[in-house]
Amino acid sequence: MRACGVIVEYNPFHNGHLYHLEQSKQEADAECMIAIMSGQFLQRGEPAIIDKWHRTEAALKKGVDLVLELPYIYAVEHSDHFSKGAVRTLSEMGVKSLCFGSEHGEIHAFEKAYCHLKQHQATYDLAVRTHLNEGYAYPEASRKAYEEINLPSDSIDLTQPNNILGYSYVKEVLTYDPNMTPLTIKRTANNYHDETILGHIASATSIRKQMKQYGLSQPAREALPDSTVEQLLSYQRKNDDWHDWEHYFHLLHYKILTMSCDELRSIHGVDEGLEHRLKRTIKQATSFESFMNALKTKRYTWTRLQRTLVHILIGTKKSLAQQLLHDERPPYARVLGMTDTGRQYLKEQKKKMNIPLITQPQQLDHPMLELEERASVSYYSILKAEKRVACLKREYGAPVMH
Amino acid sequence: MRACGVIVEYNPFHNGHLYHLEQSKQEADAECMIAIMSGQFLQRGEPAIIDKWHRTEAALKKGVDLVLELPYIYAVEHSDHFSKGAVRTLSEMGVKSLCFGSEHGEIHAFEKAYCHLKQHQATYDLAVRTHLNEGYAYPEASRKAYEEINLPSDSIDLTQPNNILGYSYVKEVLTYDPNMTPLTIKRTANNYHDETILGHIASATSIRKQMKQYGLSQPAREALPDSTVEQLLSYQRKNDDWHDWEHYFHLLHYKILTMSCDELRSIHGVDEGLEHRLKRTIKQATSFESFMNALKTKRYTWTRLQRTLVHILIGTKKSLAQQLLHDERPPYARVLGMTDTGRQYLKEQKKKMNIPLITQPQQLDHPMLELEERASVSYYSILKAEKRVACLKREYGAPVMH
Repeated sequence: MRACGVIVEYNPFHNGHLYHLEQSKQEADAECMIAIMSGQFLQRGEPAIIDKWHRTEAALKKGVDLVLELPYIYAVEHSDHFSKGAVRTLSEMGVKSLCFGSEHGEIHAFEKAYCHLKQHQATYDLAVRTHLNEGYAYPEASRKAYEEINLPSDSIDLTQPNNILGYSYVKEVLTYDPNMTPLTIKRTANNYHDETILGHIASATSIRKQMKQYGLSQPAREALPDSTVEQLLSYQRKNDDWHDWEHYFHLLHYKILTMSCDELRSIHGVDEGLEHRLKRTIKQATSFESFMNALKTKRYTWTRLQRTLVHILIGTKKSLAQQLLHDERPPYARVLGMTDTGRQYLKEQKKKMNIPLITQPQQLDHPMLELEERASVSYYSILKAEKRVACLKREYGAPVMH
Repeated sequence: MRACGVIVEYNPFHNGHLYHLEQSKQEADAECMIAIMSGQFLQRGEPAIIDKWHRTEAALKKGVDLVLELPYIYAVEHSDHFSKGAVRTLSEMGVKSLCFGSEHGEIHAFEKAYCHLKQHQATYDLAVRTHLNEGYAYPEASRKAYEEINLPSDSIDLTQPNNILGYSYVKEVLTYDPNMTPLTIKRTANNYHDETILGHIASATSIRKQMKQYGLSQPAREALPDSTVEQLLSYQRKNDDWHDWEHYFHLLHYKILTMSCDELRSIHGVDEGLEHRLKRTIKQATSFESFMNALKTKRYTWTRLQRTLVHILIGTKKSLAQQLLHDERPPYARVLGMTDTGRQYLKEQKKKMNIPLITQPQQLDHPMLELEERASVSYYSILKAEKRVACLKREYGAPVMH
């Protein structure tokens, strides 16, 4: 069976995702669509608005055949680690192609950029280091370095967030798995960062912004499949609200102020004296947003800080993160949900895999799964006691079947 | 100026406390009454129903001249450590007598018991160890050991909680400070553990129980001075409720399930594999009470478990606790509040003291004060954001003046 992989967050699943799925299936001539999806916390260092089980359901309903969990340690990371975790898991699953959305829309441009970079790797690396030392955050340092090695003018624009991610996927595919073909679909309508909704297709960012301000208002509903709308409403009813950093602020406050500076420094992402700034700042803050605004500087981007705060919330140690991120391969592939097609594909593929395939975390003893458990504990800790116990139990249950 | 010391929690300040204060002052012929009071968390391993600043105010209003903070590390401990911290601080303050309430009411009986124990120390120690090994909790092991060394029949009944504490004070006074005279006042009416209120004088336990079930109902009001009633009502209005373990349960759940077993084992009080039991049990529990009921065994008394849970909440490391508890003297004496008499006494006494006298925590850099800060962070973490920030600020402010 020919499988095509997609790398997703579905926060929430919207019309643009549906379009991308359908186009990818066609472009790849695939019989089975495999999504590798982030769990409870996302790449920008935020809790997903609804949990991974509900997002899995949404995906299976709309054309995905198999949902795998992108382990937390890769999911809450910059694009290189994120891509490594996602691409290598898909590679283990034997997918023949990886199809991503991008502002550019032409895969050759990505490949060309990659070849150009390979030729100028040393210059590029030096430039990145120089700009980091000048105090720039990593994305900006990297953008400047690309400028300095003169990416060909018909190449991709690496200031566009989906181009950056896509480029990172292509780099990973071309270096790691020559049997996988990278494909890209041009994103239509809204940019990733756009915060207004202009029609039937809108970015997840703009949809979330609408939802936060006005709930599921008409513009948000128009950008979502009916099934997503129903699901979001039912989740909100059951759990009092969607998940948002603001709900976790008291936990962050408690955690940061009951940790010693040494303990804070041992957390992944707490570097260069950030521990003192964190303690000083959170003592005065009365909301997550005011905390973040007081915390951020040129060196610390909003995203990097948010990721670090997730690591503090979950207690992700530097030493463990470095070890896990350094490993050649993800230690397992975990199934969150599947359709009949997905199940059939798994049956074919299972015996060819080099890493264990698991459907429940208790099937394997690995620190990465402990982190996953802690991510879920933290994620659900804002719920009422009965809900919390029930949701945590779900973590050890069987995958979603559709 | 002749000072008399009392060791208190005032949770809340009630008519029995007032009676004890007045009797002690008379009995000791004192010009200045000094109370050493536990802070945010108490000996039985519970949050105080209102914070230390309000309890200080209540004490100053009703006859105490100087309130000192019993450091957290002594306050949330069994009677020997508790007494050590309290008596030695009072000794540094130059008090001439220590007056405690007891069921027995005759100081000679306490002194006699102490002499008898000194003669049979080796037998007693061996018996305690034997009973601990048999699986008894410490209070029960100790009670059995006293039985075995045949305390004289006219001696104190060491199954009565205030006798136990008083005995522990007397032991500490007689071994540590020969210039201090121990005195005792017979407790009238209710026993410590009584849970019903029978009149004008009732135990703090029975008052808290009433308050928890019925709010400030008539029986509770009768056992409290009017000023306490007003204060409790105003605290409840300002902070939504009085403090209770149930309000902290979600934090405990989050904390225990995001700590590794190794991390849990490093916490003061987590011994003999308790970390596994804690994790297993809290995963199912939907309230603090159901959690405690599932957790307790013959070996772990309710009180010992609650103390351990406070240490988990605050992150009190075993290594630090052992070091601090082992020190010969408390590292400082901290003033929480004073009257004019108290201030005058301090002026006289200050130059004779062997340890620093502080009025604000930022005057000294000591791990014990860091713990105090963390105790306050944890204690206030259940409040709304604005309240939380304001209450935490109070921690660094000047003492209460009355």
